[in-house]
Amino acid sequence: MSDAAPPPEVLAGLAAIVGSAHVVTDPDLLAAHLIEPRGLYRGRALALVRPDSTAQTAQVAAFCNDRNIPLVPQGGNTGLVGGQIPDSSGGEIVLSLRRMDRVREVDADANAMIVEAGVTLAGAQGAALRVDRLFPLSLASEGTCTIGGNLSTNAGGVAVIAYGNARDLVLGIEVVLADGRVINGLTKLRKDNTGYDLKNLFIGAEGTLGIITAAALKLFPNPRSMATAFVGVADPAQALRLLEIARQFAGPGVTSFELIPRIGIDFVLAHANGARDPLGARHRWCVLLEISSQMTAGVDETMAGLLQAALEGGVIEDASIAASEQQRQAFWLLREALSEVQGKEGGSIKHDVSVPVSAAPAFLARASAAVEAFVPGARVVAFGHLGDGNIHFNVSQPIGADRAAFLAQWEAVNEVVHRVVAAFSGSISAEHGVGQLKRALLGRTKDPVSLDVMRALKATLDPRGILNPGKVL
Amino acid sequence: MSDAAPPPEVLAGLAAIVGSAHVVTDPDLLAAHLIEPRGLYRGRALALVRPDSTAQTAQVAAFCNDRNIPLVPQGGNTGLVGGQIPDSSGGEIVLSLRRMDRVREVDADANAMIVEAGVTLAGAQGAALRVDRLFPLSLASEGTCTIGGNLSTNAGGVAVIAYGNARDLVLGIEVVLADGRVINGLTKLRKDNTGYDLKNLFIGAEGTLGIITAAALKLFPNPRSMATAFVGVADPAQALRLLEIARQFAGPGVTSFELIPRIGIDFVLAHANGARDPLGARHRWCVLLEISSQMTAGVDETMAGLLQAALEGGVIEDASIAASEQQRQAFWLLREALSEVQGKEGGSIKHDVSVPVSAAPAFLARASAAVEAFVPGARVVAFGHLGDGNIHFNVSQPIGADRAAFLAQWEAVNEVVHRVVAAFSGSISAEHGVGQLKRALLGRTKDPVSLDVMRALKATLDPRGILNPGKVL
Repeated sequence: MSDAAPPPEVLAGLAAIVGSAHVVTDPDLLAAHLIEPRGLYRGRALALVRPDSTAQTAQVAAFCNDRNIPLVPQGGNTGLVGGQIPDSSGGEIVLSLRRMDRVREVDADANAMIVEAGVTLAGAQGAALRVDRLFPLSLASEGTCTIGGNLSTNAGGVAVIAYGNARDLVLGIEVVLADGRVINGLTKLRKDNTGYDLKNLFIGAEGTLGIITAAALKLFPNPRSMATAFVGVADPAQALRLLEIARQFAGPGVTSFELIPRIGIDFVLAHANGARDPLGARHRWCVLLEISSQMTAGVDETMAGLLQAALEGGVIEDASIAASEQQRQAFWLLREALSEVQGKEGGSIKHDVSVPVSAAPAFLARASAAVEAFVPGARVVAFGHLGDGNIHFNVSQPIGADRAAFLAQWEAVNEVVHRVVAAFSGSISAEHGVGQLKRALLGRTKDPVSLDVMRALKATLDPRGILNPGKVL
Repeated sequence: MSDAAPPPEVLAGLAAIVGSAHVVTDPDLLAAHLIEPRGLYRGRALALVRPDSTAQTAQVAAFCNDRNIPLVPQGGNTGLVGGQIPDSSGGEIVLSLRRMDRVREVDADANAMIVEAGVTLAGAQGAALRVDRLFPLSLASEGTCTIGGNLSTNAGGVAVIAYGNARDLVLGIEVVLADGRVINGLTKLRKDNTGYDLKNLFIGAEGTLGIITAAALKLFPNPRSMATAFVGVADPAQALRLLEIARQFAGPGVTSFELIPRIGIDFVLAHANGARDPLGARHRWCVLLEISSQMTAGVDETMAGLLQAALEGGVIEDASIAASEQQRQAFWLLREALSEVQGKEGGSIKHDVSVPVSAAPAFLARASAAVEAFVPGARVVAFGHLGDGNIHFNVSQPIGADRAAFLAQWEAVNEVVHRVVAAFSGSISAEHGVGQLKRALLGRTKDPVSLDVMRALKATLDPRGILNPGKVL
């Protein structure tokens, strides 16, 4: 596409589909859709187009496919890998699904609901709660991110250990294909073996194979009680032993198991308002453990019992059980403020990696040593979903170092960490996806036959390459 | 392919790959591989080829792809839709994966194991149990069926309500493509968002897109205790209310919820050795309810509590809790003998359908009425996985009717039932797959865009059409 002003007939054609108010070219209104949250990626666009329905989305796709105009689907614009940001050519269209924000159906008896792509995650959670059900996907940006983006990136979050990734929470989807055909797959069925599983091809494809416009989501019984503990442990290996004990006592009721390093707690205590350490001593590692139950009583006793067993077995050093919802929120603050407070300690080089759960302690030790050897004084802030083997292995700059000089080593540090990930047969993108950030890396690290098959599928489903080009592949 | 004797160079070429002992053309040895369990499908074959490794399987595929020789993958040959049976041309090769029966790795700490396609389901369950873990897939043919077949058909079974279908139990797979390339996707990772989800494309594709040679499977904590109840209810709607109560008390601990009609119990009592009704009165419907727990104690109290609540609420009529493993087996006999005993009551026309769980009572009423109106005296034996909305809606011939004349109405009865299924947005193949049996039906009932996409994927991954042709599509 050219750098020139958008051809008027294109804008007119799009306006005929969605209404002229929803073909946005005003730079001030466009701006927020052209940059991603960390500011790592910034693009340009022909226009922002905002369809209100599946039919409009299909018409926009067909229109653009006919004219070879690339579409960049966008939801809440909270993605962390640049997948929702157009390139710098100015020839792409940002297709916002935000206006498609209807909850089409909530069927408590079938434990299913059908929502459109533009419904926020918090909105979906709320729709479930209103019929006393749980939609368990939960992540920091839930107030802003949308179901379409959650599914397109196969989002993870803090409840994966019990309920799985976004992919696992989907019964069916509605998808607009590149040429405007619509897959009507909004089934509420729990079992359906009539042909190939198409939904999982589009889930996690970051908008490169089709545009998810709606989804039938699984609902779960809303837990009646919850117990939350903040636990001090000597090291990640002991944390895994605690997980084993927790599962012995609570089985699938272990709904969160988050690892937090000492330095992470110190960061939050230093920078987050109202944060305080629930434990008296300075433990080297902490675990935020939450268990949920359908029973109105007994969950506190289960938590107390498992912590007692862990304490007697020498697995944990200390623990505090939240005595109120307020205290529970205070525990969670120590985990949830982590992402933000790293910014207050200077530059931070990020990794979203996973290894087999059992390998996480060895990975942490080896990757930390490698990074500290490569950048003396660098401060490893490794935290996250230990129960899934998913570590946000972040590296804060040495105290007093030059921020820009440190960040200039981003790719070199990535390589040090990813080499250790590879040694443990891990993943270089556990939950954030590929987008632009890890596209080149994917080409170097992915099984080559899988890459070939991915390219063949892309060519089959999007022969003109109009769907989010330059992302993933 | 011709009807003539196999070209000697083909057999010699295959023998060079797998060894001449594993290219079987002796009709006596071939016979068992050419007919499926119910005798509905019978085929012919050029040969039975039995590779011992992924490398051999890949070489066989490349060899056959070069020569346009179709391959029909086969595991334990227990499939119910003819997917594993060659056509009648005599030009296809049956590719048995049974010799690939190694448990490559069991990693209890990572809750994962890697097994080859030819491991039986019972073998996989046993490998998990030996490290005190559960591999929860469970179905009647588990002693014979293989993991490759379970995954290729996305098998269901009696624990789907808690653990999901076969698809949900897979972390990664190894797949031989039509041209012999190998996707190495045997990851033990719980989270990996590096590109398209290829595994779910091959799972449930019935060997038409690739040949699954090994899988990394999820393991679960092995439940410490279990309670099993046999419950009498007035109708399926009350059964669903019982499910709701069971989930209120036991949450994800509800591990089986099977519906059995009066006539099914009567069939089993009449034909299965040692069967007896655990309940005093003749209830119109019964439920086999099982809950599992990680705790060594408390599960009996939970079961007693939920049954008490259901009794007091007028939801159930009576219930018996198994007091021993022997009694538990006796309860399960009433469910598991059901498939077999129908054969003793004359012809049986089968349906494996699903509807949204909440719609199951209305579906059962309407479909039963429609069938009884269409074939006066026909005896509906509708049973199965009510908690998943999956009903084995079988129809036994009227007492004293002519078996052949009744069975001649197979397709007409199917149409009556499937019309009701469609009215509830249900599936005409909930867990058995499509194979040959439902291929034509799929063409008439599936979303046309989905069918188009399926055909495009087939053409992309198997351009010469050598993988299980005539199945699914």
